[in-house]
Amino acid sequence: MNITAAYTDLYQLTMAQVYFSTKRRESAIFDYYFRNNPFKSGYSIFAGLEDVLDILETLEFTSSDISYLKQHGFEDDFLEYLKNFRFKGTIYSSKEGDVVFPNRPILQVEATIIEAQIIETLLLNILNFQTLIATKACRIRQSAKDKVLLDMGLRRAHATGGYYASRAAAIGGFDSTSNVKAAEDYNISCSGTMAHSFIQSYEDELKAFRDFARIRPKNCVLLIDTYNTLKSGLPNAITVAKEMEREGEQLLGIRLDSGDLAYLSKKVRVILDESNLEYVKIVASNQLDEYVIKSLKEQGAPIDIFGVGTNLVTGKPDAALDGVYKLSEYNGESRIKLSESINKVSLPCKKQVYRMLDANGMFYGADAVALYTEDKITYMEHPFDSTKSLEIDSFKKESLLEKVMENGKRIVPSRSVSEITEYSQSRLKQLPNEYKRFQNPHVYKIGLSTPLKQERDILIQKHKF
Amino acid sequence: MNITAAYTDLYQLTMAQVYFSTKRRESAIFDYYFRNNPFKSGYSIFAGLEDVLDILETLEFTSSDISYLKQHGFEDDFLEYLKNFRFKGTIYSSKEGDVVFPNRPILQVEATIIEAQIIETLLLNILNFQTLIATKACRIRQSAKDKVLLDMGLRRAHATGGYYASRAAAIGGFDSTSNVKAAEDYNISCSGTMAHSFIQSYEDELKAFRDFARIRPKNCVLLIDTYNTLKSGLPNAITVAKEMEREGEQLLGIRLDSGDLAYLSKKVRVILDESNLEYVKIVASNQLDEYVIKSLKEQGAPIDIFGVGTNLVTGKPDAALDGVYKLSEYNGESRIKLSESINKVSLPCKKQVYRMLDANGMFYGADAVALYTEDKITYMEHPFDSTKSLEIDSFKKESLLEKVMENGKRIVPSRSVSEITEYSQSRLKQLPNEYKRFQNPHVYKIGLSTPLKQERDILIQKHKF
Repeated sequence: MNITAAYTDLYQLTMAQVYFSTKRRESAIFDYYFRNNPFKSGYSIFAGLEDVLDILETLEFTSSDISYLKQHGFEDDFLEYLKNFRFKGTIYSSKEGDVVFPNRPILQVEATIIEAQIIETLLLNILNFQTLIATKACRIRQSAKDKVLLDMGLRRAHATGGYYASRAAAIGGFDSTSNVKAAEDYNISCSGTMAHSFIQSYEDELKAFRDFARIRPKNCVLLIDTYNTLKSGLPNAITVAKEMEREGEQLLGIRLDSGDLAYLSKKVRVILDESNLEYVKIVASNQLDEYVIKSLKEQGAPIDIFGVGTNLVTGKPDAALDGVYKLSEYNGESRIKLSESINKVSLPCKKQVYRMLDANGMFYGADAVALYTEDKITYMEHPFDSTKSLEIDSFKKESLLEKVMENGKRIVPSRSVSEITEYSQSRLKQLPNEYKRFQNPHVYKIGLSTPLKQERDILIQKHKF
Repeated sequence: MNITAAYTDLYQLTMAQVYFSTKRRESAIFDYYFRNNPFKSGYSIFAGLEDVLDILETLEFTSSDISYLKQHGFEDDFLEYLKNFRFKGTIYSSKEGDVVFPNRPILQVEATIIEAQIIETLLLNILNFQTLIATKACRIRQSAKDKVLLDMGLRRAHATGGYYASRAAAIGGFDSTSNVKAAEDYNISCSGTMAHSFIQSYEDELKAFRDFARIRPKNCVLLIDTYNTLKSGLPNAITVAKEMEREGEQLLGIRLDSGDLAYLSKKVRVILDESNLEYVKIVASNQLDEYVIKSLKEQGAPIDIFGVGTNLVTGKPDAALDGVYKLSEYNGESRIKLSESINKVSLPCKKQVYRMLDANGMFYGADAVALYTEDKITYMEHPFDSTKSLEIDSFKKESLLEKVMENGKRIVPSRSVSEITEYSQSRLKQLPNEYKRFQNPHVYKIGLSTPLKQERDILIQKHKF
């Protein structure tokens, strides 16, 4: 399946037909944001932007899309419009890889309302998922510290969503992926070990290890738990490691994929070291996530490489980021969506987001959302509690939304996954540790400028019953 | 991203290189099965087969895949082999849509070991995910009974995995999807309503409803919670419904997307009925799943159409099916994978699976796994408890694995999503209710024929330490 403009919800096209027939071609502004960090995390890692921009630059309806829509009762002049549809809007966005927080615009789309609606679904589909996975990967990276992390989740991923999962995992800090297609297309490091089936296909494990090491001596990792880790797999791996030494090669590692990984990794390390194989690394896999890896490290498990699959690529346990796309301005007029929960009321107007930095260049822990046109923001007010505000005049501020696309074309150079990853890691260094802890992380503050809060409150009054 | 043969894990290719270089081209048999039903369900719905067969029939490495692999140190003659790679194997499979259970082969691949390994990842990737989602959809269908179910999850799906989610949701019993691309390609019914942004783009809600109803009077559903459900949305919708009547049209429904759906749907139903709009349906959405829908029905909420998104397409809370692909025979010899947990020991040999039917054609609650060559199975033995067995001579039996592909080509006609859905519903009718309940469902028995159990036990003895 290739993504075409029909990769959307039907109601986008139904609404577009109405806009088209009533000649509503005015410009609209939509905000992309989410309401909660996934995984009870104190932060999220924004990912997916480059893919969205790539797709938008060439997005169109195919002739078969048009024929299909014709059966849905869309009118001929509207179908003609769709035939020539191209996204010609402007996008303001946070930098991909940045550390981001709930309830502030991550990205804004400014386009005719038809164009902005048609792209909504794919934008949410790509950004929600990659941000979820990059955040999960980043948490796993926190636990693994300087150890190597390998994504090996493709078999349990949500079909071709696994392709994007591997990209997002790299952005979140994974070192490599087993996913050949994603590695090829996104220039991510690709690696892997061996499967049980390889060993099973031989009459005996030692012969299997020998053949593998002979044909693929570089980066050779032997899986030692097919029959019995300590009584069969490990001794056979040691035999092969010694044979490799005589050929001038080095066994890269052994892999544990079952059993008590803390116990086995310690046992294996001792035996490897006693065999003068200090250089042979221990790779571990089997239902790992940030908590299991943290526990393994706390137990002193001497694991060098963690292979993570299901929990990474499916973003368990949350499985989704709750990102939304809300209209904030139409034809130059501010717009709001009310809700019975005050924290679900949307923010009107075209906006900019400012991040406060302390004297050391660290994040102070506060982003202020302001009207796009404001040039000096002195106070940031609590969104709902009128007794709370923060004086921010004295802070150094970064503006976070940058124009990345204009008239449907990128206006900033595209960035590789490794550039995005590097940027993300540098931003994480600016985030104080209390926002990174797993248990009850500090809550990063989001405030509104006084003019934005006033505009929102006027609209609430106007529409409330 | 198009699926090519590089949509695999690197280790499949590394192992394939070793098989190639050591001239191991013998035939292997791999079993696809899973170990646990998702969602603590008493059954699963097998889905994804037609996609897998479609992909396998044309699967190849592109020239850019080959160039990429060249950088990974694969040898030239092996790359030449990959350039000409086609899947030429045989596949035996359960029927797509069938009710299936853990720890019995769902599908068997018989091919040269290189071919069987290369396709492993994509086969698991497609079957695990679609089986997960079809099962989730089927559970939601159980709760919704005869009400209409609409999949609207694309924005929260795992990127392009959402395309396959919509297909699997239809197989599990959803009536339609909002996902245009999936509906177009898989011939699924497509539907949708309107978004808050549509209403927000207007100065007032009534004008928005009027424009929408005028331009799209067929299947018109008005979203009534943008400002205030009972004080604004509903009265405006009633006004428009009356205006539509005067034009000879009928408003299809109103949609609730927030608040207490049980309370609001009852209130709205009463007011609609008092307005002589008994025909206007109530559509509800907002974080629905099988449990919320069950509760809404138990509370007597008069909801006609349920829109389900995130929880459906991400398969929450499990997010993955634990399907595996294990070698059971190589070059005519039986193979086993041991494990510290006895229930994770794989089953050797080429096999057939038989389902017991009772006198009324209902499933008796037992599938027997036997050697493919057995012609008469009298007993089915408990896989691990040697004191337990079941006499099955007298049962009517169905053989469940059917040859669907030979020499890389389908040998049975492809089936449409609607045919698969119909088959699935008919199979569910044969499953007694105690296997369908959400709380502690009855455990469906999987047993082994005596010769298969003997062969497995011999191999356990041979390999154990």
